Amino acid sequence: MLIVEISVVPVGTGDPSVSKYIRTALEIIKSSGLNYSINPMGTCVEGEWDEIFSTLKKIHDRLAAMGCQRLVTTIKIDDRRDRNQTMQDKVSRVSP
Amino acid sequence: MLIVEISVVPVGTGDPSVSKYIRTALEIIKSSGLNYSINPMGTCVEGEWDEIFSTLKKIHDRLAAMGCQRLVTTIKIDDRRDRNQTMQDKVSRVSP
Amino acid sequence: MLIVEISVVPVGTGDPSVSKYIRTALEIIKSSGLNYSINPMGTCVEGEWDEIFSTLKKIHDRLAAMGCQRLVTTIKIDDRRDRNQTMQDKVSRVSP
Amino acid sequence: MLIVEISVVPVGTGDPSVSKYIRTALEIIKSSGLNYSINPMGTCVEGEWDEIFSTLKKIHDRLAAMGCQRLVTTIKIDDRRDRNQTMQDKVSRVSP
Repeated sequence: MLIVEISVVPVGTGDPSVSKYIRTALEIIKSSGLNYSINPMGTCVEGEWDEIFSTLKKIHDRLAAMGCQRLVTTIKIDDRRDRNQTMQDKVSRVSP
Repeated sequence: MLIVEISVVPVGTGDPSVSKYIRTALEIIKSSGLNYSINPMGTCVEGEWDEIFSTLKKIHDRLAAMGCQRLVTTIKIDDRRDRNQTMQDKVSRVSP
Repeated sequence: MLIVEISVVPVGTGDPSVSKYIRTALEIIKSSGLNYSINPMGTCVEGEWDEIFSTLKKIHDRLAAMGCQRLVTTIKIDDRRDRNQTMQDKVSRVSP
Repeated sequence: MLIVEISVVPVGTGDPSVSKYIRTALEIIKSSGLNYSINPMGTCVEGEWDEIFSTLKKIHDRLAAMGCQRLVTTIKIDDRRDRNQTMQDKVSRVSP
């Protein structure tokens, strides 16, 4: 299982606020059934490779259909093979 | 005011678990007085440029002193000049 | 067509130098047939969504088979729908 | 010495092409005297902590003065303490 942080930045929309696009992206993540956790700079999901990347592709296609002509998306993947870890585990183990 | 996500990855430690280093990094952030919010893939802080980047430098120096010979750190900066926003604002505006 | 930068960081290998893993990753990219361009912090590729992400999955699986127990990978996607752009275009348009 | 990749994304400009801003950023990097290397998704620089981060702050301030109301910047730092490495070394060691 992967933990992946996704951060989508619509470029060229003419408005520095892009929250309507991010809300749409989050609705797609929510309806994907993946566990997710929103933070101020992105959203983390946990799941398998194919379901995560097909969800991400769906987000790009939907935002393009809403008029985004360019999307710059940063993804960070934590692929740990020695043991399973959940998003909650990761936060619990480091919190001071 | 900036919102910045920081993700520090110690490389070459010999153990896939790096939580002891992340806990130290978080103690430094906590003692900096910056507002912070931990997520499964990094930690967001809000504050001014110099205090954030001097805190980050302190983290690198402390982890090097603990024996980390290499650190790969990803930072994402949201620098918004049209209005002030807090970490909490950003999450509230997009949550489905 | 997407332009995607890929940066794979093996964690916990016991050696701060990870170049043997990166060489393997680059051989996989080379044999994928994707156009690619190596830089000091990652490798950019241009191609379609599925071929890029299946190549990335192949890299993770191969490096895990080489003994990497944890991989932290950062990906940056530039998905531009208003016109096609190549990696070379992007560099040419901004070089001072 | 650090190797740092910088990628600045102006948000809300009304045009999916942001190359005029990136050219300005690159002029600032060039005039900083830092060694730099442009790639399709960002620019790598090598230098010391303070000179790199003061250059980055200068870029943000200049682009804001040009009218960018929001900048989303991703930075990746490779801080290696076991030995010095240059950008050129890193590319040479992994090229297939």
